[in-house]
Amino acid sequence: MKKIPVCILGATGMVGQKFVELLLDHPWFEIAALAASDRSAGKPYKEAIKGAMQLPDPIAEMKVVPCVPNIPCKLVFSGLDSSVAGEIEEQFAKAGYFVISNASNHRMDQSVPLLIPEVNSSHLKLLKPNSGAIITNPNCSVVGICMALKPILDRWGIEAVQAVTLQALSGAGYPGVAALDILDNVIPYIANEESKVESEPLKILGSFEDGKIVPYPMRLSAQCNRVAVADGHMACVSIKLKQKASQSEILAAWRDFSSVAQNLDLPSAPKRPVVYLDDERHPQPKLHRNLEGGMSVSAGRLRECPLFDWKFVVLSHNTIRGAAGCAILNAELMVKMGYI
Amino acid sequence: MKKIPVCILGATGMVGQKFVELLLDHPWFEIAALAASDRSAGKPYKEAIKGAMQLPDPIAEMKVVPCVPNIPCKLVFSGLDSSVAGEIEEQFAKAGYFVISNASNHRMDQSVPLLIPEVNSSHLKLLKPNSGAIITNPNCSVVGICMALKPILDRWGIEAVQAVTLQALSGAGYPGVAALDILDNVIPYIANEESKVESEPLKILGSFEDGKIVPYPMRLSAQCNRVAVADGHMACVSIKLKQKASQSEILAAWRDFSSVAQNLDLPSAPKRPVVYLDDERHPQPKLHRNLEGGMSVSAGRLRECPLFDWKFVVLSHNTIRGAAGCAILNAELMVKMGYI
Amino acid sequence: MKKIPVCILGATGMVGQKFVELLLDHPWFEIAALAASDRSAGKPYKEAIKGAMQLPDPIAEMKVVPCVPNIPCKLVFSGLDSSVAGEIEEQFAKAGYFVISNASNHRMDQSVPLLIPEVNSSHLKLLKPNSGAIITNPNCSVVGICMALKPILDRWGIEAVQAVTLQALSGAGYPGVAALDILDNVIPYIANEESKVESEPLKILGSFEDGKIVPYPMRLSAQCNRVAVADGHMACVSIKLKQKASQSEILAAWRDFSSVAQNLDLPSAPKRPVVYLDDERHPQPKLHRNLEGGMSVSAGRLRECPLFDWKFVVLSHNTIRGAAGCAILNAELMVKMGYI
Amino acid sequence: MKKIPVCILGATGMVGQKFVELLLDHPWFEIAALAASDRSAGKPYKEAIKGAMQLPDPIAEMKVVPCVPNIPCKLVFSGLDSSVAGEIEEQFAKAGYFVISNASNHRMDQSVPLLIPEVNSSHLKLLKPNSGAIITNPNCSVVGICMALKPILDRWGIEAVQAVTLQALSGAGYPGVAALDILDNVIPYIANEESKVESEPLKILGSFEDGKIVPYPMRLSAQCNRVAVADGHMACVSIKLKQKASQSEILAAWRDFSSVAQNLDLPSAPKRPVVYLDDERHPQPKLHRNLEGGMSVSAGRLRECPLFDWKFVVLSHNTIRGAAGCAILNAELMVKMGYI
Repeated sequence: MKKIPVCILGATGMVGQKFVELLLDHPWFEIAALAASDRSAGKPYKEAIKGAMQLPDPIAEMKVVPCVPNIPCKLVFSGLDSSVAGEIEEQFAKAGYFVISNASNHRMDQSVPLLIPEVNSSHLKLLKPNSGAIITNPNCSVVGICMALKPILDRWGIEAVQAVTLQALSGAGYPGVAALDILDNVIPYIANEESKVESEPLKILGSFEDGKIVPYPMRLSAQCNRVAVADGHMACVSIKLKQKASQSEILAAWRDFSSVAQNLDLPSAPKRPVVYLDDERHPQPKLHRNLEGGMSVSAGRLRECPLFDWKFVVLSHNTIRGAAGCAILNAELMVKMGYI
Repeated sequence: MKKIPVCILGATGMVGQKFVELLLDHPWFEIAALAASDRSAGKPYKEAIKGAMQLPDPIAEMKVVPCVPNIPCKLVFSGLDSSVAGEIEEQFAKAGYFVISNASNHRMDQSVPLLIPEVNSSHLKLLKPNSGAIITNPNCSVVGICMALKPILDRWGIEAVQAVTLQALSGAGYPGVAALDILDNVIPYIANEESKVESEPLKILGSFEDGKIVPYPMRLSAQCNRVAVADGHMACVSIKLKQKASQSEILAAWRDFSSVAQNLDLPSAPKRPVVYLDDERHPQPKLHRNLEGGMSVSAGRLRECPLFDWKFVVLSHNTIRGAAGCAILNAELMVKMGYI
Repeated sequence: MKKIPVCILGATGMVGQKFVELLLDHPWFEIAALAASDRSAGKPYKEAIKGAMQLPDPIAEMKVVPCVPNIPCKLVFSGLDSSVAGEIEEQFAKAGYFVISNASNHRMDQSVPLLIPEVNSSHLKLLKPNSGAIITNPNCSVVGICMALKPILDRWGIEAVQAVTLQALSGAGYPGVAALDILDNVIPYIANEESKVESEPLKILGSFEDGKIVPYPMRLSAQCNRVAVADGHMACVSIKLKQKASQSEILAAWRDFSSVAQNLDLPSAPKRPVVYLDDERHPQPKLHRNLEGGMSVSAGRLRECPLFDWKFVVLSHNTIRGAAGCAILNAELMVKMGYI
Repeated sequence: MKKIPVCILGATGMVGQKFVELLLDHPWFEIAALAASDRSAGKPYKEAIKGAMQLPDPIAEMKVVPCVPNIPCKLVFSGLDSSVAGEIEEQFAKAGYFVISNASNHRMDQSVPLLIPEVNSSHLKLLKPNSGAIITNPNCSVVGICMALKPILDRWGIEAVQAVTLQALSGAGYPGVAALDILDNVIPYIANEESKVESEPLKILGSFEDGKIVPYPMRLSAQCNRVAVADGHMACVSIKLKQKASQSEILAAWRDFSSVAQNLDLPSAPKRPVVYLDDERHPQPKLHRNLEGGMSVSAGRLRECPLFDWKFVVLSHNTIRGAAGCAILNAELMVKMGYI
């Protein structure tokens, strides 16, 4: 198969670099262009990123281009910062590109899929034929939570979710959090994060009806904390079900959880979307964030909740499963389903 | 005033050392004896603790004695490990000592006060006249939560509490957590901790009626995590009230919160038991754990909860307010109220 | 005694804030003005520093002024960044101010004392009567090394010094080092640091002869590393002496080390400029950086060096002894010696 | 090729587990037995290590055997603690086994090779034909230093070496360093480490003459520090050469450095034993410890030393290149050279 040329928008940022890393040896996609702000445009990529990555020559020497929709490929990945992503992504979509975006700007747009292949592939029906489009992946702490909720919600329904997150430093980009602020410390606040965790899952877990997404009717409350961990967002979750389920039934639902992404054998799809770990000390960011190349979500400590029904811990790699890796899986799904 | 001689049981452990540190210059109490296991007994204190603290000569050279109830003082502080505290503390109580204990063994005993002076001084009525007794302080993450809940509960009542904690390393004693386990990591499990956080507050916030404690009727759910912080336990809390309260009313309740400990001007009592911080990034362990010598609890981020009524963050110094400091304040209260 | 009004230049930066903190309750000096860049000028100080410190009202509300030499006081402390310090400090000195500076710009100027009161108070003779002047303190990792070397050099002479430093995060200012760069890591490079460590001690340890400083004739080699420590610069030092000295003689030299700063009982002078710690695991940043309010230097592990004569470890608090605290002690010395 | 059965002594310890990890898919060796203390003997391996590793079934379920020389294989790897390694390793050697050991006990024995394949393969001539033997690899911080010195020493000779190390937590085993001791801290002491760094290189870099090792005649001084890094020992090194060399000559010597291990294409041999990094901020433990599977040593910052001739920074993965990986490479060399 001839590889599909792709461009990365915002290629010099933290998520952009992760896109490059994950696409270097991708079986279907080939980096055709690296685009970034005017400050970087014109420089060889390795200079634009100040040597932060070890790269093979063709990519290292590739000249960065501006984020203008005249790039000779149909598929672009966007790791743009939300301060500029909104407009640039629209320009590309209008020009006929498929923009697979990690930015938050268009996630809640009615016409834009907020996509996790394992969870809501039906939302791709939002796309119009023969037209460019923006397809987004969720906030980095939302992906893991939604993947853990999906098989439960499908069988028993969920009324309410309480989530307290312990989020990694890489979620704040680079340079991000100052070392003096987080060494021997926790910061109980991440700007704009809690509102995303409380809203995005309703759309993601919603159904496609009559040409639009009907949000899943449940209540969500989130508290988000930054901790001294490099990669891997953890969440302590409590859920109230619509119908009762036993512990073993929920464990079975996670174990049996699979989706079109696994059925189609997409290159980035994890064999087990949710891996339950029996050890009561697990999951832990350092030990489990890289399960199946960082694309598996790990869960643990499922136990009864005195307030709701069940509580558990869920962990996902925030820059892979929660960002660039999810976006690439989204693109793979679209290719295999004939959208691209 | 002639100082009251006191003994510290378990003086060589982490909490025991904190007792020594806080009692070195205490205006009412004077260290008369340092007791520990047979392994340490007979050694000068500075050798028994391997020079971990800078100490003035009389204390540094004081010979450690065994934990046997023949020590010439009436008041003993216990920093004993729970593996041995149960029996030793009982022996001292039976022999007529007042045992002010940080150990968990007797906290839930019907006849034992589980005391926070700002919260439930009335529970001292459990004590019988002319008799030794065990008086306990709560688990290190429970103290801060109960102090934040008390003024709210007094005015509006509380139906349910959800608490997710981010707890410091010193809570696990010394050597405690291995550096390899927590560097760049979070451990979502602390043995036996969640059951304490779910049970102790009910007793602490309960009322003294007809000679016994009637637990406060509310539901509690806890998830406890260990993070790479030296000192300072944080909790993300959501509460459901019995009667509605506004944000400004709750802030006022915290601001106006005071108690017999403040009225009696006890030496270790903080002027403000709960300090609310306006900055949305606060409280933080590194910045606020030492407020008023580590005896104030700090709170922040009071905001509406989509599931319950309100959510907020609370922080307390786990080895001071949550352990040795609370125990000393308990003893001060008992002295001033005539129990000792 | 009526307090001497002082101004702090660069008051909003990391060193500037440390000046404010150390001067809040100073017995001789009183903050009369806080000066900073135009970006901050006009704002109340607490807003200019975004609430990073807890401050009493008069200081918190004090309006920041621009760094222009029209401030009604004779004595200014400069915590200015080296990118702007050069010119501003000269303007103030020409206008007749005494500028007590922590910036590196003028340290090596022939007419500028590079002052540590315990080491080279005679260098104040460089100052001309009835004239403003710049007086500098050394680089933050140089102070501790020079204080440890001084009593040795005075008795036996030193031919060569090898120093490898492990430096704290606060040495890089704020925000400084990104958490992602230093968590689980060491950075073996600090821009421009090694050249300072290799040159400043020669001037500091030099003698005042015929109206100028004659550098001390020795060779120095430095390697500087950044480690994940908040405060406290450590150095592993090897020295070659001109005349042989025994271990006990060197220990005695450190123990007996005193200076005009101690004799004059300056408010910020530590009782023991160099504290030797017997435990072979000491000194450690977390345990010893705050000895005597952070103004004592701690040393340890004196042992024979197979290459040179002796090797040892020295530690000092980089933002106190190595910056603002040293500058304040410099000013105190100048006041007591009649320069101000 | 039929795989060679091997046994791991001390298989449950930190180095033992690293042996298992590195041997799981080894092309020449096959784990035939896992031996450990009586406390673990009889348990399935996964239970003996308390699930610390993810393992394939045959290994996970393999019953741990005692460290007794009746195991049906000729080649054993020893990750035994030095408190027991001395005697057990001798027993195995006397019984005819080849003991490839990471323990320090026999390193300096006259008849025991202290082996780094890239540096001193000729030392294998110490072994007697048709006889068991102990073959050791160096201390974890010595390996990297010796590999960086070797090509320099071969061309210009070395008179003196000064090394200050910044060593990782995993060098202390598990649980090893307490988190409370190293968070926000540095410990300038590692028991028995400096003497090893000052003695082992002389033997390693020595020559085989008349049936024995003649130590290389140079002087060495070491200062060893523990830092908050999980893996990767760094050393700041200064060297004095016998004959002058230019910077470009030394860089060329490192670049061209190769050995019998590379010529024989041993499975664990890195293509580039020493990788020089041009960026002045490199090498860094987090970025470079895993170069070529952790078997390459990285160097950087080669610059003139005002005291000696040159100084530089060297980094190696302490549990791979500095322990289990080096031992396995030693065994591979012995197989290919016909010793086993």
